[in-house]
Amino acid sequence: MKLATLKTGGRDGTLVVVNRDLSLYQRVPGIAATLQQALDHWNACEAQLRHIYDVLNDGTSTHALPFDPGACHSPLPRAYQWADGSAYINHVELVRKARGAGLPPEFYRDPLMYQGGSDSFIGPRDPIVVASEAWGIDFEGEVCVVTGDVPMGATPAECAAAIRLVMLVNDVSLRGLIPAELAKGFGFFQSKPASAFSPVAVTPDELGEAWRENKVHLPLSVRLNGRQFGQPDAGVDMTFDFGQLIAHAAKTRELEAGSIIGSGTVSNKQGGLWGSNIENGGVGYCCLAELRMYETIEQGQPVTPFMAYGDRVRIEMLNAAGNTVFGAIENEIKPAQ
Amino acid sequence: MKLATLKTGGRDGTLVVVNRDLSLYQRVPGIAATLQQALDHWNACEAQLRHIYDVLNDGTSTHALPFDPGACHSPLPRAYQWADGSAYINHVELVRKARGAGLPPEFYRDPLMYQGGSDSFIGPRDPIVVASEAWGIDFEGEVCVVTGDVPMGATPAECAAAIRLVMLVNDVSLRGLIPAELAKGFGFFQSKPASAFSPVAVTPDELGEAWRENKVHLPLSVRLNGRQFGQPDAGVDMTFDFGQLIAHAAKTRELEAGSIIGSGTVSNKQGGLWGSNIENGGVGYCCLAELRMYETIEQGQPVTPFMAYGDRVRIEMLNAAGNTVFGAIENEIKPAQ
Repeated sequence: MKLATLKTGGRDGTLVVVNRDLSLYQRVPGIAATLQQALDHWNACEAQLRHIYDVLNDGTSTHALPFDPGACHSPLPRAYQWADGSAYINHVELVRKARGAGLPPEFYRDPLMYQGGSDSFIGPRDPIVVASEAWGIDFEGEVCVVTGDVPMGATPAECAAAIRLVMLVNDVSLRGLIPAELAKGFGFFQSKPASAFSPVAVTPDELGEAWRENKVHLPLSVRLNGRQFGQPDAGVDMTFDFGQLIAHAAKTRELEAGSIIGSGTVSNKQGGLWGSNIENGGVGYCCLAELRMYETIEQGQPVTPFMAYGDRVRIEMLNAAGNTVFGAIENEIKPAQ
Repeated sequence: MKLATLKTGGRDGTLVVVNRDLSLYQRVPGIAATLQQALDHWNACEAQLRHIYDVLNDGTSTHALPFDPGACHSPLPRAYQWADGSAYINHVELVRKARGAGLPPEFYRDPLMYQGGSDSFIGPRDPIVVASEAWGIDFEGEVCVVTGDVPMGATPAECAAAIRLVMLVNDVSLRGLIPAELAKGFGFFQSKPASAFSPVAVTPDELGEAWRENKVHLPLSVRLNGRQFGQPDAGVDMTFDFGQLIAHAAKTRELEAGSIIGSGTVSNKQGGLWGSNIENGGVGYCCLAELRMYETIEQGQPVTPFMAYGDRVRIEMLNAAGNTVFGAIENEIKPAQ
């Protein structure tokens, strides 16, 4: 089943069901007004929503309208929780290596996770408004899941069973603000402006065989200003699966339905800068920082600049048949007015 | 005006208006079902809610019922944002001094702030459920504000004008989990379980002369197992006011109505351990950690234990006339079942 949220209808938008190939949608006011409402009452809503999805795919819906990702907000325009892990340890290892530090062994046992701002996401096709280019504007292509209610102390298996939906996210980062912020010890805040999510959220079964081990086994495509920049496989080198990430978040408190848990920047282990680039047959990167870290390690300093006003990033995932699963996130960097 | 949320009525509870002395309340289904809904449409709701408040205080309400803080959830049972500052630099200075570190001068210019979990608060009289006493269970008595919509980059004065409500909070902390978590660099997560807020949220005008300079100039009373433990003045030694704290949060992204911004543990500068304790005429502390830091600095190690199962903390604020402003937070520590 595929769900999306139109921008019309108030702060939480309007929930719609989208058909498999993202060509048609149908409003569902009789089932739930918003995605959060559907998640709050999932057991009561799920079967009804799936019925609409089947009718849309059959071509027998009499209420179907043409679907336009540009009319969508993020599936949850605002959420009660956005907790982002850093499950691809290769990315963390490169960050540390670039500053001459090793990787503590406990990083393979205990996930990194930060609490992100969730009150006001931007839409999948909205501009990323940043007051200064000097802040080091970067994208981060990630996979994330939306949970149902999760009790405190739930096991990874119990947590995996609470996964309701899968989405993509552009976890926008201001790299220039990170070092001073992390040095203060309280984690990210100003360095993480509003994130953008994929136009469509899908139930895990929609991924077929690509959903296994609580991971998404498909390449995540990242294009920068129209050129392929990365396509690492989200199922490869993910040290912690989504069940483990949710369990980490739920260790000392329960999670409420609609909590979004992120994978961190997708990153595959590669043989160094030269072999990693797309044009040399590598899988590339899901953020600029990773390329800049390879440059720092091998050349002593970063060469590739961060994003400038007017730059565009496109984040998407195609299934084995080459069809878009979630629709594409497309954000352009714009100055504050 | 004073507002509260009854636990009945679903995940977001039921909004009620409470009279000034917290003896009566009235439901307001014709105005807004929940506090978040009122905040989402504040301009449309405020005058109507204030009218009910006046009628309740006049004693002319025909729908008034006896108010019971024990029936209340936190005013926002779940929120889209809970960002907690650390505005009382004295507390930060003690933390650092206890581990032999000085205070960087920029700490007086740039507020500390972390993004807290906001999907699932506990109620003001709910138990704090913790799986292990060994995690170092502590309370933190704080003041916080609830904002309306705040544009990105808003000035402190603009941010102050967006303050809708004031509350108290018990920012529960698991001290034993903090060092390892902060060492990982991503800030607090498991070390900050669900917070509890005061039964009642009030508009700033309700504080009269005690609300000035965007601070609350009243002592915050903290009682531990029935004995007074602290009563520092929340208006004293607050390096950053709420306008500045909100502006810090809004530097790189807009804040949505219903964002909760905290002051951090209230803490007054005092002349050392002996003179700080309540029984010696000091104003005491709003968390156990602060007393333990004085002990560490002066005696080489902490002596006072953290909370154990069955311990109770009570956090309250009385106005100049000796009346409770927000009602009392009262939490008992309980083991997970």
